[in-house]
Amino acid sequence: MRIMVINPNSSQEMTQSIREVLEGVKRSDTELTVVRTMGAPPAIQSASDIAQAVPPMLELVGKANDEGYDAVILACFSDPGLEAAREQSDILVMGIEETTLHVAAMLGHKYTILTPLSKRIPSKEQDVRRFKAESAMASVRALDLTVTETEANPSRTKARILEVATRAVKEDGAEVIVLGCAGMTGYANGVEQQLGVVVLDPTTVTLKVCEGLIDIDLRHCKRALYAKVTHKDA
Amino acid sequence: MRIMVINPNSSQEMTQSIREVLEGVKRSDTELTVVRTMGAPPAIQSASDIAQAVPPMLELVGKANDEGYDAVILACFSDPGLEAAREQSDILVMGIEETTLHVAAMLGHKYTILTPLSKRIPSKEQDVRRFKAESAMASVRALDLTVTETEANPSRTKARILEVATRAVKEDGAEVIVLGCAGMTGYANGVEQQLGVVVLDPTTVTLKVCEGLIDIDLRHCKRALYAKVTHKDA
Amino acid sequence: MRIMVINPNSSQEMTQSIREVLEGVKRSDTELTVVRTMGAPPAIQSASDIAQAVPPMLELVGKANDEGYDAVILACFSDPGLEAAREQSDILVMGIEETTLHVAAMLGHKYTILTPLSKRIPSKEQDVRRFKAESAMASVRALDLTVTETEANPSRTKARILEVATRAVKEDGAEVIVLGCAGMTGYANGVEQQLGVVVLDPTTVTLKVCEGLIDIDLRHCKRALYAKVTHKDA
Amino acid sequence: MRIMVINPNSSQEMTQSIREVLEGVKRSDTELTVVRTMGAPPAIQSASDIAQAVPPMLELVGKANDEGYDAVILACFSDPGLEAAREQSDILVMGIEETTLHVAAMLGHKYTILTPLSKRIPSKEQDVRRFKAESAMASVRALDLTVTETEANPSRTKARILEVATRAVKEDGAEVIVLGCAGMTGYANGVEQQLGVVVLDPTTVTLKVCEGLIDIDLRHCKRALYAKVTHKDA
Amino acid sequence: MRIMVINPNSSQEMTQSIREVLEGVKRSDTELTVVRTMGAPPAIQSASDIAQAVPPMLELVGKANDEGYDAVILACFSDPGLEAAREQSDILVMGIEETTLHVAAMLGHKYTILTPLSKRIPSKEQDVRRFKAESAMASVRALDLTVTETEANPSRTKARILEVATRAVKEDGAEVIVLGCAGMTGYANGVEQQLGVVVLDPTTVTLKVCEGLIDIDLRHCKRALYAKVTHKDA
Amino acid sequence: MRIMVINPNSSQEMTQSIREVLEGVKRSDTELTVVRTMGAPPAIQSASDIAQAVPPMLELVGKANDEGYDAVILACFSDPGLEAAREQSDILVMGIEETTLHVAAMLGHKYTILTPLSKRIPSKEQDVRRFKAESAMASVRALDLTVTETEANPSRTKARILEVATRAVKEDGAEVIVLGCAGMTGYANGVEQQLGVVVLDPTTVTLKVCEGLIDIDLRHCKRALYAKVTHKDA
Repeated sequence: MRIMVINPNSSQEMTQSIREVLEGVKRSDTELTVVRTMGAPPAIQSASDIAQAVPPMLELVGKANDEGYDAVILACFSDPGLEAAREQSDILVMGIEETTLHVAAMLGHKYTILTPLSKRIPSKEQDVRRFKAESAMASVRALDLTVTETEANPSRTKARILEVATRAVKEDGAEVIVLGCAGMTGYANGVEQQLGVVVLDPTTVTLKVCEGLIDIDLRHCKRALYAKVTHKDA
Repeated sequence: MRIMVINPNSSQEMTQSIREVLEGVKRSDTELTVVRTMGAPPAIQSASDIAQAVPPMLELVGKANDEGYDAVILACFSDPGLEAAREQSDILVMGIEETTLHVAAMLGHKYTILTPLSKRIPSKEQDVRRFKAESAMASVRALDLTVTETEANPSRTKARILEVATRAVKEDGAEVIVLGCAGMTGYANGVEQQLGVVVLDPTTVTLKVCEGLIDIDLRHCKRALYAKVTHKDA
Repeated sequence: MRIMVINPNSSQEMTQSIREVLEGVKRSDTELTVVRTMGAPPAIQSASDIAQAVPPMLELVGKANDEGYDAVILACFSDPGLEAAREQSDILVMGIEETTLHVAAMLGHKYTILTPLSKRIPSKEQDVRRFKAESAMASVRALDLTVTETEANPSRTKARILEVATRAVKEDGAEVIVLGCAGMTGYANGVEQQLGVVVLDPTTVTLKVCEGLIDIDLRHCKRALYAKVTHKDA
Repeated sequence: MRIMVINPNSSQEMTQSIREVLEGVKRSDTELTVVRTMGAPPAIQSASDIAQAVPPMLELVGKANDEGYDAVILACFSDPGLEAAREQSDILVMGIEETTLHVAAMLGHKYTILTPLSKRIPSKEQDVRRFKAESAMASVRALDLTVTETEANPSRTKARILEVATRAVKEDGAEVIVLGCAGMTGYANGVEQQLGVVVLDPTTVTLKVCEGLIDIDLRHCKRALYAKVTHKDA
Repeated sequence: MRIMVINPNSSQEMTQSIREVLEGVKRSDTELTVVRTMGAPPAIQSASDIAQAVPPMLELVGKANDEGYDAVILACFSDPGLEAAREQSDILVMGIEETTLHVAAMLGHKYTILTPLSKRIPSKEQDVRRFKAESAMASVRALDLTVTETEANPSRTKARILEVATRAVKEDGAEVIVLGCAGMTGYANGVEQQLGVVVLDPTTVTLKVCEGLIDIDLRHCKRALYAKVTHKDA
Repeated sequence: MRIMVINPNSSQEMTQSIREVLEGVKRSDTELTVVRTMGAPPAIQSASDIAQAVPPMLELVGKANDEGYDAVILACFSDPGLEAAREQSDILVMGIEETTLHVAAMLGHKYTILTPLSKRIPSKEQDVRRFKAESAMASVRALDLTVTETEANPSRTKARILEVATRAVKEDGAEVIVLGCAGMTGYANGVEQQLGVVVLDPTTVTLKVCEGLIDIDLRHCKRALYAKVTHKDA
């Protein structure tokens, strides 16, 4: 099977990092194309960034359809433009936030999303409602580290993830921790072992669910929410 | 006070129609600039249309800020890009869907949104959750008329609005009917009189609430959900 | 337009204070009559106070209808008797709690209500559900100051409001602070500036929304929830 | 034990009817005083009726406290003034609506409330939220008969109750039917047998729960929601 | 009336303790048979324990039906097998958790469940949803004492209950405390007096409600949720 | 990888049918052991059936752990004993109802569960809450066919599924149809094509997600909800 993984930002580095992680977990019969979105901002950190990123990203979705891919994965933990992408796509489109929240809901009582900046907590809470996953949410908590800081000092980042996850477990009752940002990839093990909870890396989780759904030819419903509305309908 | 009303689509006709309606209800001390969004689709009927419309619309929001307007109203009943617009704006930005749903919640037990096409019902239900107004929602119902049909045959449109609103009142317990599309403007009176319910025209309602909030210098909070995230934050 | 603002308690002082605040923000074409409710308790601090206040308050609502007012505002942050007032009134009746909660829901992610006494927190939470505004509620928090203490020591009151609002923002994620008591009027600015959130004075907000709704002749629906049930119906 | 049952309206006939029903189901060690509320309307059919009824009703609550009763039951299916009554009472106060909704929630999947007039459906839905019993609600449905009609033609009333309850069971999934009005007393048996569901008479149910709670000396919490707020607190 | 109280575990000691408590509060016309469940684990502390306990417990339910009892009470605060017991029973079956949560909802704003071990908090939260009582829940809090420790050191247990209940009241707004485990029986008074809240012993509360419902011949609905599905239905 | 698929009933025929379906969709590197539960009822149609089935089923779960399987799938659309199975298992345990509801939530706006008998609708609604998937539920609808009838007359069954699914789509807004019973396997295609919605076969969907999660070594959290509580904890 052939899956196009679209990084909705333009960062070559982050795209390469996603590629490496996914190449390590993909099935042998899976062929991945991991692309960045030229014309999008270098990182997606706001609704404004999303607004800029979506139009060029949709062109990549169209390309994946034209070139016979089996599915598209949007690899940014805010699922930018997921609804539009599904409208424009006859092949399966999966968002890493939506998928991960529902897998999280299956693996423990409640989940906590870790996000880099506290000012993004409300938009994550909005996304939880957007994906109808609020009944299983324990909390959204912030690391209070910028992406740059996250990358600059791995040992501090690791310590900070453990500290915030510990609070999520102790104070909010979380049993599943969702690493809600690419910059947190790779720090899961310590948390799992020290806290005895499940830690999810969204890109990885989504690829594995996506491979399974492709096997049985599932895709999103095109009847209404993701219908293609042509201007003849108007 | 000076308010820029942005029609997020590129239709000159619809923009003129909004202008006429609002000129008729604005306060004498309100100066309106009603603009269309060049580069946006001629109508907003899907998430894909929204994706296209938002980037040029945001430029108009920036212009309203630069030119000293007091507020911006986004005049499309899906509040496209409301979150991004608020991030980019220091002046008040109001969306006609969000505002109308909350006014509807005040004026009767529950409200029903009328929307042209049944395939858009799910996205309206998603918006109701996006604006945290689900506890007062009775239903979303469709006219099953395209915008073109709506405009082509006013008497059929009027009859159809009355018919669907009647069902909303009788079967769903609606006490407030929200006319969820520009094409329905002007048909409110018959429904109000025949059914004894409140009928809201979103653009009109929003202008009046907006004028009031400007008087007391209220604007949206810029702390988190609508914070401007600069790339230094990253 | 002519609006009767009814203070549901009998305090002359509080009525005068409401009058002064509203005279300062009303439109020039608005004529206000601010009245107290003779026969009501001097302050409304419990369901028992409400029970006593409502019957004489309803007479004032009837008077406003008889004398050709355009609307009535109930100026107590528990909206005592709002449902009965709307039943008895053909003109628009607005409550300052209901209106403010819905405006709060529009201006930020979530709101916190400040109330004087912690023993009133549950009744505020009940009101939030009564007005179907619970999805946007962050919390209700108390100053733990009596109204008398609030008035006796303005600098302590100011400090206390800032302290409690700070916790609401930091711990509950509030982006909008609702000053849920007449005694808190006038302390908004410090909070707004220091915390970067929106602070709402309910009486002021409600007057401005009310003026707007009168302009377009909106009133509450009289079909069911606020229907006048005559004993012939029995 | 001594229980004062307060009919919050002034109807002698309805009071006598309540007395007869309760005398038939009370325990032998229970002494009932069933009183009507002089000064209240002859029937409680609106928020306005409630406003009028509550002040004289509260005096009866005070009397029950003074005269050493063990509990008070408010015998009107809208629990008028329940919160104020509890504030003013050191002895247990129970409302027949609140009690019955929670018993209904225990005896089947979901319950439907039958109410006489369709225009009262919204206020019943509000009560369901007031008593935090919405998760077990199937629906509120109306007989579309006035109280007078209900009493004038028993066979039509019986037929109508069966018809509406049948729809509640078939269309809404109700397993428990709550007879939400004194005029429906006595029609339960047919519905139970024909539909195989539980039918609750609120006054009866409440008396039996009340007797049980008195035995173990339970009463409502006076800490906050039902605290007595004195004006020294102000 | 004759009620069979089934302790779903096999502990003779706990069964005797339940018997003593209930004998002290039962009506004089109530005949109690309090039995333990041979073949069940000595304590019910997990879903696995429930799985083992339910089959032999159901035999006791069958016996109660065969021997002409009026009702069965399942006396373990997780209501193990309540749904199956109701399917198999024509007489009323009550669970002490379900009953107590709904009584708790009537007696104050919100309730907190105390449970021995923090690892059981999620399953209590699940039960709250199972019984549709989540709108009145303040929290579930753990003593962090094993049942053995609870029994070994009564003064520490008492102190711990008071400490945790105090936090529930202060931090979560609880007005009713539910003692969610047999080992907590007998410690209610101190909490009631020191905190001014209601404290419920589930077994006691349920017996009293059960006696009342038997008086008026109420039982659970057998139409769907608790229907007996025979294999002919298949 | 090795997965044990446990059919929680004792039917050899149904077990064989599950085996055939899954052999057709499994990955080539997946080794399936599909077993029935000796000692369980021949079909699971009630809480009583579940009570009987779970103890022997748990022994199979233990065996899967002992024999080095990678995961267990419980193949009955009520996920009987899922919580107990997870307590007793160190390897991943998945239930086909929980998994399918969350996949359904990802693939369209709302889902409808089809169940054979209308008397099982409430227990399905309870399950939806048990799995915290209620925000994406459109409805539960019954075929009103017994399992025997379902199997006896395939063309009638097919017609009935199409008819009920059509109503779910038209009246409830479903975009995903969940075939909530083994007897419905194999009828998906017609519905998908005629209605333009997604149809899910729970056993198939769960196997594919399970294979993916095994690849990345995910399992359920053992911290609290699914913790192994030993009697030393007591």
